[in-house]
Amino acid sequence: MSAPSRETTAPPTAPRLVAEPHKDGVDAAVAAARRVIAALLRAGDGTGADMNAIAARLDAVAAGLTEKAPAVEERLAEMWRGEGVTRHDPVTGPENALAPPLHLRGKEDGSVEGVVTLDLPYQGPPGHVHGGISALLLDHTLGVANHWGGPSGMTAELTLRYLRPTPLFEPLTVTGRQISVEGSRIRTAGEISAGGRTCVTVEGLFINKHLPRPS
Amino acid sequence: MSAPSRETTAPPTAPRLVAEPHKDGVDAAVAAARRVIAALLRAGDGTGADMNAIAARLDAVAAGLTEKAPAVEERLAEMWRGEGVTRHDPVTGPENALAPPLHLRGKEDGSVEGVVTLDLPYQGPPGHVHGGISALLLDHTLGVANHWGGPSGMTAELTLRYLRPTPLFEPLTVTGRQISVEGSRIRTAGEISAGGRTCVTVEGLFINKHLPRPS
Repeated sequence: MSAPSRETTAPPTAPRLVAEPHKDGVDAAVAAARRVIAALLRAGDGTGADMNAIAARLDAVAAGLTEKAPAVEERLAEMWRGEGVTRHDPVTGPENALAPPLHLRGKEDGSVEGVVTLDLPYQGPPGHVHGGISALLLDHTLGVANHWGGPSGMTAELTLRYLRPTPLFEPLTVTGRQISVEGSRIRTAGEISAGGRTCVTVEGLFINKHLPRPS
Repeated sequence: MSAPSRETTAPPTAPRLVAEPHKDGVDAAVAAARRVIAALLRAGDGTGADMNAIAARLDAVAAGLTEKAPAVEERLAEMWRGEGVTRHDPVTGPENALAPPLHLRGKEDGSVEGVVTLDLPYQGPPGHVHGGISALLLDHTLGVANHWGGPSGMTAELTLRYLRPTPLFEPLTVTGRQISVEGSRIRTAGEISAGGRTCVTVEGLFINKHLPRPS
């Protein structure tokens, strides 16, 4: 571990950490898609629902959207203008149905925090959150903490420690905080807790470089 | 690191590593839901599609499923009978629309391997896989490698190293292998590569205990 070269302080102006969800447009369709994902797992195969008919209805939606969609290169360029990743990432993005979503906010002490309750799509062990889902939430939270606390960059190393099982169906608090910056090396830490008890901790090393935005 | 207490050898009989997807039933509806998730990101808000109408169609599907779904406690007990997590986990599960899905197979050398191509829902940096998604795939792959190679357990620690950006839209090879077992401590390693070059490596410590299955 390198020694911190400066103290982290909260930035004077608030960068856009997480996109604001809209009440209509694609965000509304994505929110409904999340309800479909969870309902498929809640129902399973034993309900007598006509799953082939449901598949056909979902495929009709997908086909209609695909017909109108631009080429993927064009779409990528469009995505990375404006708010960029915050609208479509798989953790906080209102346009991404994989995202629970986690709503993170920047705090005056330089950290970021969000609360999320996860349902069956995020299950690993019985009734508990998949360890890889905790890693996904924490990697993203550290990235957002870097945007909030100082320079940001790409993940170089992550170390996760699982102290106790993380429950489904209960509010989880996810936090992240930039610890130190030395040259291009950024160290950031975070955790997931439930009911005031820490379930998973993470330490990350990030490198202050960014891939070019497609144009 | 503790020294390995025994060599890992391939088991004589093949346990069920990953569920076989079905051509119909809930698996077909989940496959269609995946196409909806990707199509929503491919389309975005600029296509002129009536997203509120799409939201209503998706919500009708979700409501129909939810109406028929059992209570969540009953559903959890049902999920964990039979094949258990392999049908509904967020990495390989044919009933989970979050799963790409990754199809892992056990190899004679004791390792497990799968190939997957990821689309926009799994994006982090422009055109590349989210670091947390790589962590999710690798954590799960290590768990499956433990099932294949010897005793399995719950994730206690994960260390991920990101060597180069992991591309979207290209076949990724995901591998895992149990390294050592000492008492209840299981060490397992894996990686994601693209075009023969390693993108992300992982080392994991697992503890040979399991949460009780709900009943």
